[in-house]
Amino acid sequence: KLTYFNVSMRGEPARLALTIGGIPFEDERINGESWPALKSTTPFGQLPFLTVNGTTRVAQSGGILRYAGALANLYPCTDPLKAALVDQVVFHVDDISNAVYCTIHESDAAKKSLARKTLAESKWPQMFASLERVITQHSGGKWAVGDSMTVADIQIYVIVSLISSGLWDGIPTDLTEKYSKVHAIYKAVQSHPKVVEW
Amino acid sequence: KLTYFNVSMRGEPARLALTIGGIPFEDERINGESWPALKSTTPFGQLPFLTVNGTTRVAQSGGILRYAGALANLYPCTDPLKAALVDQVVFHVDDISNAVYCTIHESDAAKKSLARKTLAESKWPQMFASLERVITQHSGGKWAVGDSMTVADIQIYVIVSLISSGLWDGIPTDLTEKYSKVHAIYKAVQSHPKVVEW
Repeated sequence: KLTYFNVSMRGEPARLALTIGGIPFEDERINGESWPALKSTTPFGQLPFLTVNGTTRVAQSGGILRYAGALANLYPCTDPLKAALVDQVVFHVDDISNAVYCTIHESDAAKKSLARKTLAESKWPQMFASLERVITQHSGGKWAVGDSMTVADIQIYVIVSLISSGLWDGIPTDLTEKYSKVHAIYKAVQSHPKVVEW
Repeated sequence: KLTYFNVSMRGEPARLALTIGGIPFEDERINGESWPALKSTTPFGQLPFLTVNGTTRVAQSGGILRYAGALANLYPCTDPLKAALVDQVVFHVDDISNAVYCTIHESDAAKKSLARKTLAESKWPQMFASLERVITQHSGGKWAVGDSMTVADIQIYVIVSLISSGLWDGIPTDLTEKYSKVHAIYKAVQSHPKVVEW
């Protein structure tokens, strides 16, 4: 059972990995009202967490994603170097995501607008350009690392989906389109039959 | 070859994992002078990175630590649920570390002092208390997860060492001593023969 808010951020890659892998799970979505009571029962006071075998609670989205990826055959557990190449993409996309999450709670409108402008015009273009370069080095074709889909592709899909959706004021929805390999991975995950169904 | 600055922060757990596991590696330490020229040649413009077989550069400290842990038999690659339990500790210690790293570059002395006070009196006590509780659930004895040392223990050792060293103004050097399991893990890693030698 995967417990998370009803949004497509930190918990979404693990939901998608389980879905793509055909691993049945209970998709528990928490609203703002029930969160305060639940908070103290979680490992670190945070969502998402995963409940395994009804009893073991595992927190931290990064660990949950790797575990879901292992079950779904989307994380190369038995090939540590390949896993490290997947990890570097997953962590870099975390850095990309964290850069916008930091601006979400800024209450000063002028500061928020400036932070989004810096993100859109300088910080993210640099981060997506280095992501594109790293993918070019390690991709075996259409996926980020090697020749099959991994959790790295799912991470890329989730951040590009969020940007494309126009969720964040000041961030152009077409920001990622000129990074051709990044964009192709987004399209490839988006058109996966299980993702279309989801 | 592991390339990082000559400090004991993000790259240190991987150095220790390789050392404890007896995996030979070149310990390349970069100074401020040579960093600007090196920066553009790294995968994401950051240190640490690992060079494998002389050619493949792998970035992101979290991925490097897991890879080093896999080589050193300190990361349970073949048991995904146990790996997720190790990961949740590693990620939580990253959160603990990031909370102080955020205060390092604050140039306003009053703001920095307030941030350190909040960290020392409220934020870190909560974070170490939840770490202690999670260890209690999953430890098989003296280590954080199960009955042998993992990279989770090394992460704990590094953050407790940094706190104990008095590196950060406003943070009491004995802050972690009342968390008995956390402190016992710190002592156990500290007294490992390879760490004593290091």
